Amino acid sequence: MGTDWTDNRKNLMLFSGRAHQELAEQVAKELDIEVTAQTARDFANGEIFVRFDESVRGCDAFVLQSHPAPLNKWLMEQLIMIDALKRGSAKRITAILPFYPYARQDKKHRGREPISARLVADLYKTAGADRIVTVDLHTDQIQGFFDGPVDHMRAQPLLTGYIRENYNCEDVVVVSPDSGRVRVAEKWADALGGTPLAFIHKTRDPKVPNQVVSNRVVGDVAGKTCVLTDDMIDTGGTIAGAVKLLHRDGAKDVIIAATHGVLSDPARERLADSGAREVIVTNTLPIEESKRFPQLTVLSIAPLLARTIRAVFENGSVTGLFDGDA
Amino acid sequence: MGTDWTDNRKNLMLFSGRAHQELAEQVAKELDIEVTAQTARDFANGEIFVRFDESVRGCDAFVLQSHPAPLNKWLMEQLIMIDALKRGSAKRITAILPFYPYARQDKKHRGREPISARLVADLYKTAGADRIVTVDLHTDQIQGFFDGPVDHMRAQPLLTGYIRENYNCEDVVVVSPDSGRVRVAEKWADALGGTPLAFIHKTRDPKVPNQVVSNRVVGDVAGKTCVLTDDMIDTGGTIAGAVKLLHRDGAKDVIIAATHGVLSDPARERLADSGAREVIVTNTLPIEESKRFPQLTVLSIAPLLARTIRAVFENGSVTGLFDGDA
Amino acid sequence: MGTDWTDNRKNLMLFSGRAHQELAEQVAKELDIEVTAQTARDFANGEIFVRFDESVRGCDAFVLQSHPAPLNKWLMEQLIMIDALKRGSAKRITAILPFYPYARQDKKHRGREPISARLVADLYKTAGADRIVTVDLHTDQIQGFFDGPVDHMRAQPLLTGYIRENYNCEDVVVVSPDSGRVRVAEKWADALGGTPLAFIHKTRDPKVPNQVVSNRVVGDVAGKTCVLTDDMIDTGGTIAGAVKLLHRDGAKDVIIAATHGVLSDPARERLADSGAREVIVTNTLPIEESKRFPQLTVLSIAPLLARTIRAVFENGSVTGLFDGDA
Amino acid sequence: MGTDWTDNRKNLMLFSGRAHQELAEQVAKELDIEVTAQTARDFANGEIFVRFDESVRGCDAFVLQSHPAPLNKWLMEQLIMIDALKRGSAKRITAILPFYPYARQDKKHRGREPISARLVADLYKTAGADRIVTVDLHTDQIQGFFDGPVDHMRAQPLLTGYIRENYNCEDVVVVSPDSGRVRVAEKWADALGGTPLAFIHKTRDPKVPNQVVSNRVVGDVAGKTCVLTDDMIDTGGTIAGAVKLLHRDGAKDVIIAATHGVLSDPARERLADSGAREVIVTNTLPIEESKRFPQLTVLSIAPLLARTIRAVFENGSVTGLFDGDA
Amino acid sequence: MGTDWTDNRKNLMLFSGRAHQELAEQVAKELDIEVTAQTARDFANGEIFVRFDESVRGCDAFVLQSHPAPLNKWLMEQLIMIDALKRGSAKRITAILPFYPYARQDKKHRGREPISARLVADLYKTAGADRIVTVDLHTDQIQGFFDGPVDHMRAQPLLTGYIRENYNCEDVVVVSPDSGRVRVAEKWADALGGTPLAFIHKTRDPKVPNQVVSNRVVGDVAGKTCVLTDDMIDTGGTIAGAVKLLHRDGAKDVIIAATHGVLSDPARERLADSGAREVIVTNTLPIEESKRFPQLTVLSIAPLLARTIRAVFENGSVTGLFDGDA
Amino acid sequence: MGTDWTDNRKNLMLFSGRAHQELAEQVAKELDIEVTAQTARDFANGEIFVRFDESVRGCDAFVLQSHPAPLNKWLMEQLIMIDALKRGSAKRITAILPFYPYARQDKKHRGREPISARLVADLYKTAGADRIVTVDLHTDQIQGFFDGPVDHMRAQPLLTGYIRENYNCEDVVVVSPDSGRVRVAEKWADALGGTPLAFIHKTRDPKVPNQVVSNRVVGDVAGKTCVLTDDMIDTGGTIAGAVKLLHRDGAKDVIIAATHGVLSDPARERLADSGAREVIVTNTLPIEESKRFPQLTVLSIAPLLARTIRAVFENGSVTGLFDGDA
Repeated sequence: MGTDWTDNRKNLMLFSGRAHQELAEQVAKELDIEVTAQTARDFANGEIFVRFDESVRGCDAFVLQSHPAPLNKWLMEQLIMIDALKRGSAKRITAILPFYPYARQDKKHRGREPISARLVADLYKTAGADRIVTVDLHTDQIQGFFDGPVDHMRAQPLLTGYIRENYNCEDVVVVSPDSGRVRVAEKWADALGGTPLAFIHKTRDPKVPNQVVSNRVVGDVAGKTCVLTDDMIDTGGTIAGAVKLLHRDGAKDVIIAATHGVLSDPARERLADSGAREVIVTNTLPIEESKRFPQLTVLSIAPLLARTIRAVFENGSVTGLFDGDA
Repeated sequence: MGTDWTDNRKNLMLFSGRAHQELAEQVAKELDIEVTAQTARDFANGEIFVRFDESVRGCDAFVLQSHPAPLNKWLMEQLIMIDALKRGSAKRITAILPFYPYARQDKKHRGREPISARLVADLYKTAGADRIVTVDLHTDQIQGFFDGPVDHMRAQPLLTGYIRENYNCEDVVVVSPDSGRVRVAEKWADALGGTPLAFIHKTRDPKVPNQVVSNRVVGDVAGKTCVLTDDMIDTGGTIAGAVKLLHRDGAKDVIIAATHGVLSDPARERLADSGAREVIVTNTLPIEESKRFPQLTVLSIAPLLARTIRAVFENGSVTGLFDGDA
Repeated sequence: MGTDWTDNRKNLMLFSGRAHQELAEQVAKELDIEVTAQTARDFANGEIFVRFDESVRGCDAFVLQSHPAPLNKWLMEQLIMIDALKRGSAKRITAILPFYPYARQDKKHRGREPISARLVADLYKTAGADRIVTVDLHTDQIQGFFDGPVDHMRAQPLLTGYIRENYNCEDVVVVSPDSGRVRVAEKWADALGGTPLAFIHKTRDPKVPNQVVSNRVVGDVAGKTCVLTDDMIDTGGTIAGAVKLLHRDGAKDVIIAATHGVLSDPARERLADSGAREVIVTNTLPIEESKRFPQLTVLSIAPLLARTIRAVFENGSVTGLFDGDA
Repeated sequence: MGTDWTDNRKNLMLFSGRAHQELAEQVAKELDIEVTAQTARDFANGEIFVRFDESVRGCDAFVLQSHPAPLNKWLMEQLIMIDALKRGSAKRITAILPFYPYARQDKKHRGREPISARLVADLYKTAGADRIVTVDLHTDQIQGFFDGPVDHMRAQPLLTGYIRENYNCEDVVVVSPDSGRVRVAEKWADALGGTPLAFIHKTRDPKVPNQVVSNRVVGDVAGKTCVLTDDMIDTGGTIAGAVKLLHRDGAKDVIIAATHGVLSDPARERLADSGAREVIVTNTLPIEESKRFPQLTVLSIAPLLARTIRAVFENGSVTGLFDGDA
Repeated sequence: MGTDWTDNRKNLMLFSGRAHQELAEQVAKELDIEVTAQTARDFANGEIFVRFDESVRGCDAFVLQSHPAPLNKWLMEQLIMIDALKRGSAKRITAILPFYPYARQDKKHRGREPISARLVADLYKTAGADRIVTVDLHTDQIQGFFDGPVDHMRAQPLLTGYIRENYNCEDVVVVSPDSGRVRVAEKWADALGGTPLAFIHKTRDPKVPNQVVSNRVVGDVAGKTCVLTDDMIDTGGTIAGAVKLLHRDGAKDVIIAATHGVLSDPARERLADSGAREVIVTNTLPIEESKRFPQLTVLSIAPLLARTIRAVFENGSVTGLFDGDA
Repeated sequence: MGTDWTDNRKNLMLFSGRAHQELAEQVAKELDIEVTAQTARDFANGEIFVRFDESVRGCDAFVLQSHPAPLNKWLMEQLIMIDALKRGSAKRITAILPFYPYARQDKKHRGREPISARLVADLYKTAGADRIVTVDLHTDQIQGFFDGPVDHMRAQPLLTGYIRENYNCEDVVVVSPDSGRVRVAEKWADALGGTPLAFIHKTRDPKVPNQVVSNRVVGDVAGKTCVLTDDMIDTGGTIAGAVKLLHRDGAKDVIIAATHGVLSDPARERLADSGAREVIVTNTLPIEESKRFPQLTVLSIAPLLARTIRAVFENGSVTGLFDGDA
């Protein structure tokens, strides 16, 4: 014989790692909730301790962590938080990774290499994550590395929307910084109204392995406003080189737009001095004051994350939020 | 107390599905062995029955299956063969998939789609495959879909070697048929001696979703011998259209080269009439007489498969065989 | 701190593969819902593409697929649909297999064979099915192949109900067409009011392996109305032979009753000419016009499936629906 | 850099639970080895402790346990032994279960029942068993419950060989004690030279659920020597009743043959007094003096087990040993 | 299209193994529900059969079993019950093990031993348990053996509360019976108001392995009321010896307190004659009349279990119930 | 048909993370091999890249990594190395963790905490480790966290051997720095010839949670040489406090001995100034010059690791190496 006791409460709870608490606060504000209080600290040898300050039983847990340097620390912190939620009886655990760590190691470039992006997916699964929310994966196939639902959001509408509002797109040409991202550039060209396309082609010396002889622009950029797009900007070497090449080939202006502003040293100097008119990124990663420079614009990803969390929680379709993955 | 009985025999055994037995025979001949005899038949409702005619205990099993239409049948046949090997106590099972099925569904293009290429990897794992050998995946990331070692072989040296032997590469330009494979074309350009590069850019109507307005060539092809490369040719529509576009832009000659000759109707007619001088594929898929036409050249992938099998069996490095996947 | 947002909506959604859409429509009508709209098509090489036309987040998904020839295609289609549901965040996925594929390969008859019925169960689990609903498994033990709940429904009440309504059961004897299904025949005999029992015994030549010398009826059938029962009728050879044997032994009338009408060629001719008075099957498999003949009666399984779906969705007991499986 | 150190020794080691050490000793003698020494004892509350007295690293371990009452104790002991072998770095672990426990619960007879035979398979897998060797499963489908190789041996040749040596088979009829094992009886009939077949039919009262009204013999037994076969004899009620029924119907002699002599109380009395001329079983279970009676013959299964172990160890085919399973 | 049918009922159902039905009845009474009716019986060879008498679909199942001798039987019974619940579509399954079996084998004391406590955790997981509720594990680390939430309750407040009510704690010293549980004794000392601490030190002969030379008390006990605490009392040898040693060293009184009263023979005699003033245990294990003696006090664990079940069912925090575990 | 090709080579290969390469070199030298060459580097954002410089196919891989600060980085590096070995077809992968990371978080001390030591075990399993070799786990139960063989080595013989050689043990008393490690101290007392035992008892204020009121020594230390033992020394606060307490109670001399010298700031100052005569640790963790001080003695663990690797590789018993584990 059963009882008539029922429990239909399903609470949304938002948890945040320590890597980028400002982003979590922005998301919480959008959702009109508070980030769940917790105790988190580092032991002297680097071990991390986490404890939540209130019961998490039966909650629908969203665990947000950003992954700037030292990336491995923040990765482990998020895994440990997920383990604590699993053992504390959370009902469902969604890991939010605005910047997916190790996304660049998504295949074996040569023999005897890891596929770290798959390893990362398996680590989250092992720790107890039921699903993943992420933004602009280095390659779309990484969705398939996780054994469960992945909500793969696009920052492109945010970035192209900004460009359309601030620039005249009639003389724009979208440029891919290398041959591997021309497809993405093509999507940007469509989003900006059907602009032309170009890319940087690296010529290698056939007699010397991996020796790049020269870079040249394939496609016509003279007199144009170039929108150079990439998924992330790390040390900025490639992208700054591309700006110079485009100017050499007669480009009128160059705007850089990327989702993830890793901005490792010496990105700040390189970008500030590259000749680019504006560099636009989102805050999927924290961008401290020391990384900023006059031409840099940072758009907030928080509204997109908040709307996704609400849609996941309410089982609504997220197709309206980001094209393609609902 | 143990005994001193020892068993160090480890037999290589080669098994073949029914989709492309000629390829298996070629591989067996290269290895100087016989394909293991088996009974395989279809029940009236399509169920497949397989039984091996000799003991497979303790063997190092290599199960070769090609995946032409009806692809789902050959996929299930290979899974069933692997199940029989697992239950028959094979020591290690390597699934050889010269053409990886469902490779094109390697991500969610839009919401509510499957990622069938990951599903396929999981099905092979579930059936009992310890490792996979495959050729020219649609995208390299598919390696990461399988939870175990994947030997990803490249047909590029076979194809570019043929081109270098049969054509003067000085006036060659390598052309990618769309924006998504420019990186691969770049590798071909390097392999052919540092040739220029071009690609076909599809312009979409910004007011009509998915409406391609026009295709145009980005890069210079006038007076050149174009090498159009792709991983597979299915119905041949895109590639035949590309040939016409290249000729319109003044190309001297167009050569098509692809690893996988799916050649579904009406590929034969389209390619024969496209104006291409030669169409080069390998036999990762069976190419029956009815699919052939005068300009078609079929190179055998069997030597590459045989050398890989031997290297896997002998634990030798396969880096010498195919760059990149050791 | 959590919020008070709650989500108690739990939607039943019915999905249908393309093998037997009429059955899905019947089930939907019984449930007073619509089959969820989807896009499904075949690529030229046989690869299947599926996409659902509306959000499936949080739904209680029931995926109905029938498995006629080409069976492997329909099996893969259902697996792909399940993968899409899993990645699209369905809350629970129930695979409905009115005819369980590969059920006859439920054990190793001899060495080095697969156990394909177990493999099939594992494939559904791997794709993401949480539970299975099926009808009249070839052997009951197949329930144990799936690692999760299996609702195993019986068409027997439907079939014996029809016989009781249409025939005088006083002179009935239930006959098993071979020695392996006498237990099932015994249950039918009970359901028809405690009738006598008989079966066909195959005598083999002890000097020639697997050589059947003769068939003979064990039990008394002279002057009786024989109800020949089996789980499925494939090409109809065995069952048509049994009809002749029963008539030879003096049976007054023979009625054939089976759950699954596979009816592969030349079943139509064999059964129509067998001398049986009526052949009764259900529509767990589609029975096209070309397979029909005057003596054939097809009963609909849709009401049973619909009641089961409702009970599963509402967490009601299904014991009232089909004896034996909760 | 690797070394040239090699290790090709692979030791067969035989371990025995405490349920039936005599059988293990017989098997060891056939293999010309010793049962590995171990410490095994029971704590006062029933917890079992096991420790092996010598290193098991890298060995090919065969763990033999019989499962008489108290069956659950012996089952746990074998699981604990397997765990100790796994943690002690055995290379491969084969669980030998001459009598598979819980084989009768191989399906849900009615709702809300377990499928304990599948559970048992999963428990062995979880503990660390790589493969299973067993004898005469209650139903062949149980092979498919284990996720790995199962060597399913048949005692039938041993039993029918004994009968052919000791009885004139010309007037034999093989009798199944119920409707569910007629197929097995048919195989025995073939093995004894193509004898006739009969079975006991239980008639139930259609108005009272599960109420058996009467048993009657289907098939002709008058004047015949009946060989009553079953997979196991537990309390002997059904089988002793069958003997009486056969004598009532004019049988000249009745011989009982079964693989597994469970012989729970009051089997000894029932069988001794049943009127059967001889009762033949094997020693898959220990048969203590208290269970024996004059008509009982016990054949040793040890030679069959020993030959199987050797074949598994040497990767030889075992098809010669027992028909049907590789 | 989905329907608007909703199902928000979530029923708590309590199931009980047969080892200690009185405890289940007490818990049910606290929860104001009934223990779910079931059919459970033993076959003659020890196999257990279980069937629930009402539907369990969608319920929140709590399966209570105690583990006295014959412990392996009760362990298997609980696993079988869980399997039946899983296959019967229970929504969530919580295994309640007031006394965790094999907890003492929580590590390899020497080589080639099992870690049976981990094996037990894996067996419950394999059978289908989603979570575990248990009381006073032999070591806290056993929580980490289970791959899921473990609610680890403490009987200490129950036991120390009783002592505080019945004894003057001013002259109490808490004594650990061996060197391995001094930390636990320290917690008791805190709970009893900051009392002094002592423990029994076993001195071994350095020349004879595992030879205990003598036991001596470390810490001051003369004139004190000693509270000897342990997690369990099995045969009582160690604890009775400790009482004598404490008296020899001048203890005024000795009170024994332990959570689990295993009380295997000859615990009753040993404890009754030990000189201890009172022996306090809980009823995590059944304590039949034959095990009782005048100094024995049995406190009921049922209220603690009932409050935990309610908290788990209602997703309330259980931190208030037992310090330390969520 | 199989071939007669055989492959019996089994190569031992030693791999080393970058945390403590000196230890790997010492181990390699003991084994008379070379550490396998590799490319390992950090990206600017902390992502780690690893590639082995030679084929690892079929090798018996031992992957040694130490875990000092920044511990999470070295943990991820080892996981990535293991992933690369798995995908590169290593035959067997043994992770060597001289200091097991997160061992102190081996249970939930209070609710809503992780059990990070279990998480770590699962991460290694997920990455592909078949087995673990480690030294002096914080608690022995952590062995049971890993689902596979764990070789748990003891540094105690190394440490007590050193003490016996350098000190007169006749007036020694072994002291545990807290109540949780008295059992370990008891083993040391036995190993040093049956010395007396003592421990530090923390008294808490019953009115203030977790408020330690005072520490006092339980057991007699006046005039003795105290050997204070622990598994690790982190910041040294507890242990330095214990030295002072022992001197206050009249100890003649205090020697500190621990396996793992974490020695986080300000351990160097605390220990150097504590009054201890000697502080003995091993090099399971790197001990840079900046951490050293005059009283510090560092013993090398390399010979023990080398002997263990050789025994594992050769399938020899390691019981002779370290008491207790296989």
